[in-house]
Amino acid sequence: MTKNHQSLVHLTITRDNIQLLSPELNANSPIELVDIIESKSPEERVLIFNALSQEIAVRTFEYLPFRLQKEILHVLPSQRVASLLNAVSPDDRTKLLEELPNDLVKQLLKYLSPEERVLTTKLLGYPEDSVGRLMTPDYIAIKMDWTVKQVLDYIREHGRDSETINVIYAVDDNGVLLDDFRIREFLFAQLDKTASDLADHKFIALHVDDDEEKAVNVFRKYERVALPVIDVKGVLLGIVTIDDIISVAVEEDTEDMQKIGGVEALNEPYMEIPFIDLMRKRVGWLTVLFFGEMLTASAMGYFQDEIAKAVVLALFVPLIISSGGNAGSQASTLIIRAMALSEVGLRDWWRIMRREIFSGVFLGVILGSIGFFRVTLWSIFSDIYGVHWFLVALTVFLALIGVVLWGTLSGAMLPLLLKKCRLDPAVASAPFVATLVDVTGLIIYFSIAIVILRGTLL
Amino acid sequence: MTKNHQSLVHLTITRDNIQLLSPELNANSPIELVDIIESKSPEERVLIFNALSQEIAVRTFEYLPFRLQKEILHVLPSQRVASLLNAVSPDDRTKLLEELPNDLVKQLLKYLSPEERVLTTKLLGYPEDSVGRLMTPDYIAIKMDWTVKQVLDYIREHGRDSETINVIYAVDDNGVLLDDFRIREFLFAQLDKTASDLADHKFIALHVDDDEEKAVNVFRKYERVALPVIDVKGVLLGIVTIDDIISVAVEEDTEDMQKIGGVEALNEPYMEIPFIDLMRKRVGWLTVLFFGEMLTASAMGYFQDEIAKAVVLALFVPLIISSGGNAGSQASTLIIRAMALSEVGLRDWWRIMRREIFSGVFLGVILGSIGFFRVTLWSIFSDIYGVHWFLVALTVFLALIGVVLWGTLSGAMLPLLLKKCRLDPAVASAPFVATLVDVTGLIIYFSIAIVILRGTLL
Repeated sequence: MTKNHQSLVHLTITRDNIQLLSPELNANSPIELVDIIESKSPEERVLIFNALSQEIAVRTFEYLPFRLQKEILHVLPSQRVASLLNAVSPDDRTKLLEELPNDLVKQLLKYLSPEERVLTTKLLGYPEDSVGRLMTPDYIAIKMDWTVKQVLDYIREHGRDSETINVIYAVDDNGVLLDDFRIREFLFAQLDKTASDLADHKFIALHVDDDEEKAVNVFRKYERVALPVIDVKGVLLGIVTIDDIISVAVEEDTEDMQKIGGVEALNEPYMEIPFIDLMRKRVGWLTVLFFGEMLTASAMGYFQDEIAKAVVLALFVPLIISSGGNAGSQASTLIIRAMALSEVGLRDWWRIMRREIFSGVFLGVILGSIGFFRVTLWSIFSDIYGVHWFLVALTVFLALIGVVLWGTLSGAMLPLLLKKCRLDPAVASAPFVATLVDVTGLIIYFSIAIVILRGTLL
Repeated sequence: MTKNHQSLVHLTITRDNIQLLSPELNANSPIELVDIIESKSPEERVLIFNALSQEIAVRTFEYLPFRLQKEILHVLPSQRVASLLNAVSPDDRTKLLEELPNDLVKQLLKYLSPEERVLTTKLLGYPEDSVGRLMTPDYIAIKMDWTVKQVLDYIREHGRDSETINVIYAVDDNGVLLDDFRIREFLFAQLDKTASDLADHKFIALHVDDDEEKAVNVFRKYERVALPVIDVKGVLLGIVTIDDIISVAVEEDTEDMQKIGGVEALNEPYMEIPFIDLMRKRVGWLTVLFFGEMLTASAMGYFQDEIAKAVVLALFVPLIISSGGNAGSQASTLIIRAMALSEVGLRDWWRIMRREIFSGVFLGVILGSIGFFRVTLWSIFSDIYGVHWFLVALTVFLALIGVVLWGTLSGAMLPLLLKKCRLDPAVASAPFVATLVDVTGLIIYFSIAIVILRGTLL
């Protein structure tokens, strides 16, 4: 952070001072400029953007959040929009355009040069959330018979436009990927060796139709900074770099977490999302859960006579059903995350189920015992649970085992079931599992009560 | 994936065939070797490890999960342990040692050469979860008066041991960091220019005492593949590379998610963690929540007379308290994640509170209205809710508004409160908030019922 950056954040930009400030603004890094631009009003933002040199404007634009990119495209003169759009890197351009409404995209595509337009249309043609949407065609490709010297000269001449020069790709005459090299391999090699002397013919590549989630896991596993993208024939189409993968990973983890918490993915920072959108994302699930939860009123209604006869039963309803819900939240969260990290898959369903049956019984017995002693203890010092307190305690004990076991099992199996149906496992959120277990938990609890308390309380 | 890798996964390794397989094994990449080693028995693993060349053994060891690293250190002959430990990169060594018991660490330190021992002891001296623990001292440092040619020659000579040659650092005679360069800047420059000709004297650096979470956010913001680490005087101590940051980020997101689901962080993959450890991580929170939830039985007991007079009240208990819990889960998850991404901080508490008051009322009115119509509708077709159904419906309506508002407010404020007390905000898990809201929700519900139904049902 430079001093000049902090003072620019707090300064009001006007038509009068912008000329004077221009050199200062251009001396900031793109990230600092993003900070400055975010702190300003829309009018000031246009003034700043117009005062930036083309190169700095482009790099700053690439770092801006979508909301501000959109705003700036709206207010800049169309000539400036054209030069900006043609200059941003293809992957950042795809990321911007895929969020915009179709009409606007068509209009913006007209500003692009013929080559850039063809390229962009092609990238936008790949399925949403696929590797194709993340890739950039700006990479360095060489031939196997080039010498190290030729390769280094080529990089010096053509490397400026490449997203990264840390990795270099060898292709054959049909563009089929043959190998990848790190730049250091060429820097450390003798100048008269050829690329094929250095080749090990081993490389990891992403497929253009792979989904982004898979790409994230491949990057994590192989610890790379860039990976090549190929089509079915093995032809090199582009590369994906770690910075894009990190944004995807952050977004996906955020989505998963929000879903686990029972909210639709916001896709925008909490503080920036308009109130009405925030409500839309929350009210949907909340209403669905509410309708599910209304079944508890029906279930309770069904056991109304039992409750009237033994009000003591009603006292333990929240305790028992919420314990099932909590156990279920635990299980579903563990499985959802393990699936996202590819630690477990559908093929493991039986091993997971076996583990969770043991877990459910173990946890149920512990909570059940605590519940049993709670009832016993209170009964020693008061007659709140009546003369049949032992039977009440037994009912609570058995109901907790049943409900906790049922909770862990549903929590663990639901994400797998959703995946099997090609739905997002994270939909099996903590509140969703809790609601499911609330309804069924009531039935388990009252059924056990009817069996044990028949002839005494019921 | 090579064919030979797949066949090696399925082959049993014995003392008889290991000699023959040695060249094949050594032809695999470290990541493939990790796959192979993971699929084998402990005995086979030692055989494989002994058959690997030193260089490949070291790189494979670096990629192994902690569990297997530990196993292999136990069974390898001590001479091999020594050569392995001396050769792994310092950051990977720190990561391994910090997980091992103290006695073992002391023993292993003895195997290290004097220089490596001094270095390792120093790295282990930084606080846990600090940037110091992640860094490696293997980087390229140059002086500002060096020419581009000198720099490139220096890289060729000394770059092999560096974690990355993508970034190069300029320091003064005291080791103070002056600037960072990307390797491309030197590759594209004329050979007789000096580093200071290329310098912009702008760089982002981490402080050695920064915590890992901060480092993750800096990497995300600035989209770098490596960042320098300095001390208070600005002296360059080491670098942190993106691969380590990605592991930290994955671990932190996993921890946050598991906490949101009401589980202690497992720190191990779900399938690999021993059953008893898995139970330990789950039973703690579950028991705490159970004790909290037992207060619902007390609260219900307190309102026992009301329930006995109007059993109809009991029917809506699960519906009302779980709606508060669900609304609370949503709010706490949103705030926990926004805090982890540094989107919101303690200073925003009032803006968050204002937002959540509006949210709570909005969501409460919607759910309350649905609840109201549910009671009304059932009352038209049955007399389940008696003659005073309108008052029951009104009670449900108002209780839902109160409980949902209370749920969103506690869900949003708890993470901030925890942070303020220097605790982990993610402790405000969905089940934790739900339990809190269950107990207070009952009190809200019955209090409203007593006011509205006094003189009729109560």
